[in-house]
Amino acid sequence: MTALGKTTWVFSGGNIPRTSTGVEPEFTSRDELCLLNTGGRRAELEMIVYFEDADPSLPFRVVVEPRRVFHVRINDLIDPHAIPLGVPYGLVVTSDEPIVAQLTRVDTRQSALATTVMPGYSVGD
Amino acid sequence: MTALGKTTWVFSGGNIPRTSTGVEPEFTSRDELCLLNTGGRRAELEMIVYFEDADPSLPFRVVVEPRRVFHVRINDLIDPHAIPLGVPYGLVVTSDEPIVAQLTRVDTRQSALATTVMPGYSVGD
Amino acid sequence: MTALGKTTWVFSGGNIPRTSTGVEPEFTSRDELCLLNTGGRRAELEMIVYFEDADPSLPFRVVVEPRRVFHVRINDLIDPHAIPLGVPYGLVVTSDEPIVAQLTRVDTRQSALATTVMPGYSVGD
Amino acid sequence: MTALGKTTWVFSGGNIPRTSTGVEPEFTSRDELCLLNTGGRRAELEMIVYFEDADPSLPFRVVVEPRRVFHVRINDLIDPHAIPLGVPYGLVVTSDEPIVAQLTRVDTRQSALATTVMPGYSVGD
Repeated sequence: MTALGKTTWVFSGGNIPRTSTGVEPEFTSRDELCLLNTGGRRAELEMIVYFEDADPSLPFRVVVEPRRVFHVRINDLIDPHAIPLGVPYGLVVTSDEPIVAQLTRVDTRQSALATTVMPGYSVGD
Repeated sequence: MTALGKTTWVFSGGNIPRTSTGVEPEFTSRDELCLLNTGGRRAELEMIVYFEDADPSLPFRVVVEPRRVFHVRINDLIDPHAIPLGVPYGLVVTSDEPIVAQLTRVDTRQSALATTVMPGYSVGD
Repeated sequence: MTALGKTTWVFSGGNIPRTSTGVEPEFTSRDELCLLNTGGRRAELEMIVYFEDADPSLPFRVVVEPRRVFHVRINDLIDPHAIPLGVPYGLVVTSDEPIVAQLTRVDTRQSALATTVMPGYSVGD
Repeated sequence: MTALGKTTWVFSGGNIPRTSTGVEPEFTSRDELCLLNTGGRRAELEMIVYFEDADPSLPFRVVVEPRRVFHVRINDLIDPHAIPLGVPYGLVVTSDEPIVAQLTRVDTRQSALATTVMPGYSVGD
């Protein structure tokens, strides 16, 4: 496969549902970033989180190994700091290797499961 | 990060669910426009709403501060006029600075929550 | 607004849910094509439906007036023929004027509402 | 219609829900790849599945006949091997003819149906 092009992925609609019902961790409400690195080199990613009423986060570091997918729950990020639940956020993911990113949401605040996928916007090259 | 390019975002599938169940405002049915301005200058936006049986709305003005996300409920827009519930609409968002826009829907007309994300189409530059 | 470019929109994931629960027509299961014409001229569209085990449909004709949105339920198309429920289909929409198209699904086969939005792929110009 | 361009489609958010409720096969939880070939020649596709903790799959072969849609459940793939349920995966679909691909998910782990559509990213030409 030819290179996907070195890309930055942007998501504007982040918001981790505040509560959950059902067995954890399978039914824990979450925003989950789904990363795919089809290339032969490990991808080193930097994620910046944007808020409505505060400055952007410090950069989060994530690695996706060559020829691997990696699904990381935004809820589980704690270094350099945790992302608050139930608040609007945006996300910019940059990578030193070509990757594809999608953001999925599982929302079990009510007893019925709701799921959605947020396509990222790819910019730069 | 390099500029996202000055963009116009277009959505054709708007329709604010007419009723809600559950605690407000968390579970209020809504269409919510999710805007991200990663740049260093405030973005001044103009939104035009299109209908099936009436002329387009007057322009709504929205501001997104530098390095901030802003989620605005279409339901909450009242100036220059409110958007009726339960009718099809389209949305064109233009900005004087590069932004990313997505439209999310929360639908609690029935007791179970349904959510969806509508990617916008970016045109022009 | 500058022209969106004359486009063809393609959807591969069509499938009208076979049954419904709840009050009609609000909760009728459906695939709904959401069309937006922001320009000053009426758009004349042709839709072709593709199946797994049969030749493509004859063309459906749809008009979107200038500066109007139009949401049409695939379930309601009957000329030149109806689309069967519960079968996979694909959809190609071509327009003589620039438009934006998205396909939304409302699924009430079970008592809980499920909704999703399918972004179209825009080809040609 | 002019050619869609020969494309590779990439999905990073795969995860087949592990359990189902409701009548099979209609309500079986699944990831379903929706393929559309609007052209006049049969399309021969190769699908590679990427995992978090294992090397990518051997190639799966799928054919989409001319002027046909084809919806294939990832759950049903068994040759060269089955895809495990409940684990993150990514998907790369390449075709020797222009096609359009989308990935839909039906999740009936709880009694309420949840559906989502994952747009693919098209790369190369």
